[in-house]
Amino acid sequence: MSFFETLADRIDDRDSVVSVGLDPDPDRLPEFLDADLPRWAFNRRVIDATHEHAACYKPNAAFYEDSDGWRALEETIAYAHGKGVPVLLDAKRGDIGNTARQYATLLDDDGLGADAITANPYMGRDTLEPYLSRADKGVFILCRTSNSGGADFQNLTVGNDKRLYEYVAQRCQEWNEHENVGLVVGATAPEELESVRDLVDLPFLVPGVGAQGGDAAAAVDHGLADGVGLVNSSRGIIFAGEGAADEDEYFRAVGAAAKRLKQRLNKHR
Amino acid sequence: MSFFETLADRIDDRDSVVSVGLDPDPDRLPEFLDADLPRWAFNRRVIDATHEHAACYKPNAAFYEDSDGWRALEETIAYAHGKGVPVLLDAKRGDIGNTARQYATLLDDDGLGADAITANPYMGRDTLEPYLSRADKGVFILCRTSNSGGADFQNLTVGNDKRLYEYVAQRCQEWNEHENVGLVVGATAPEELESVRDLVDLPFLVPGVGAQGGDAAAAVDHGLADGVGLVNSSRGIIFAGEGAADEDEYFRAVGAAAKRLKQRLNKHR
Repeated sequence: MSFFETLADRIDDRDSVVSVGLDPDPDRLPEFLDADLPRWAFNRRVIDATHEHAACYKPNAAFYEDSDGWRALEETIAYAHGKGVPVLLDAKRGDIGNTARQYATLLDDDGLGADAITANPYMGRDTLEPYLSRADKGVFILCRTSNSGGADFQNLTVGNDKRLYEYVAQRCQEWNEHENVGLVVGATAPEELESVRDLVDLPFLVPGVGAQGGDAAAAVDHGLADGVGLVNSSRGIIFAGEGAADEDEYFRAVGAAAKRLKQRLNKHR
Repeated sequence: MSFFETLADRIDDRDSVVSVGLDPDPDRLPEFLDADLPRWAFNRRVIDATHEHAACYKPNAAFYEDSDGWRALEETIAYAHGKGVPVLLDAKRGDIGNTARQYATLLDDDGLGADAITANPYMGRDTLEPYLSRADKGVFILCRTSNSGGADFQNLTVGNDKRLYEYVAQRCQEWNEHENVGLVVGATAPEELESVRDLVDLPFLVPGVGAQGGDAAAAVDHGLADGVGLVNSSRGIIFAGEGAADEDEYFRAVGAAAKRLKQRLNKHR
């Protein structure tokens, strides 16, 4: 089964397009966590609290880039799979042939076993090929990102009155030979979400609805393709327990935040 | 001392602009290596064999992305530093604010302690800021890359008859407030090396001279700024011992390959 078929089933089953971003910022991990691998201990509790509302988990590789971190990431992915939730590794990788092939092993079962990955298009098609050629896995390619500098290069006009992010979207659609390609399009630029949706019928991963304050209605209206797509919140869910009196209260708040986002998004589905 | 001051001293001291790429592809590691951390064992021997010819070591993060890999990378960086050689982590990262800050900890002494890093510009200035703001460290931003798909987006005309990679170069020059910014410009497109050099006076990291068959003369002529810059070879050096009868012969060939590249480049300096 392809990634997007798996994801479609999960979305139906859980009635949710919520992607929960597992970004365990060491400065914000709760103090009550006293474990050998605190990131893994935290993620396990987050997964316990949120999995019934999660269409997908999206760990960002930046938060795992050390020896213990990688172990925490392996455990986290295996645990999410044990709960039946697919995992999208937010790695934003992009490199030349032999190196990109190495990065693609993150998707292998004897690597991390992630179900999908995010990738950066700047270096061109051959750097994406190790992901594009994997019919069983998904790849979400950066298109229009939700950060303040997203417009610096992505909004340049590149000819035919198209902007770079629109041109990237069209090329990605051409490269979607295995129906395994999605796009990352941020919720903080709703009119751009719409402009990309007008060009392509790929599923979007839409970050920026939580801490970054993006537009939930636009995320759902334009982010889904045949009902399939993901709207991500990371800090807005996983740190929702900050200020809680104890551990149980902390993770009840985390679960409630995931449920609230699910319901908020479902109003627009 | 800034990264580029350190690098300038190293280049003078060793009379070399060679960057040795430490990309220990697991499929090509010699069979005689029988160690707990084979990538680290291999890199240590490569460093022993090449350090007198090396201006810099450039490990590519893709080859270290597992728990043992991060340990191997930590050991490798510490060992290179012990030999007095600066280390450029080829990570090609780029992500939003809090995540980019996390990636930037790879430069911290309690992280990997790398002296410089490569970064991807697609997401814009704020995603580069955690590197740009580090006056003590270097950042090489992808500009025109040496792979076959490098032209797919980088060569799009973005206005004023400028191509995207030229526009990226100019913005990076503006962002060079701390004299810590370099560009990655591949040797497989010599006329583009020249066009970027005509626009900016930043040091270049020039990959593609070894296995990728790029132009050594153009790499040196255009890659250096006031004599400072790096020309990288990875596979062409570290696997130069393939076919050797034994371990000593293997690493003699590795050392000889680094020396040959140094001499070949020095003809053009």
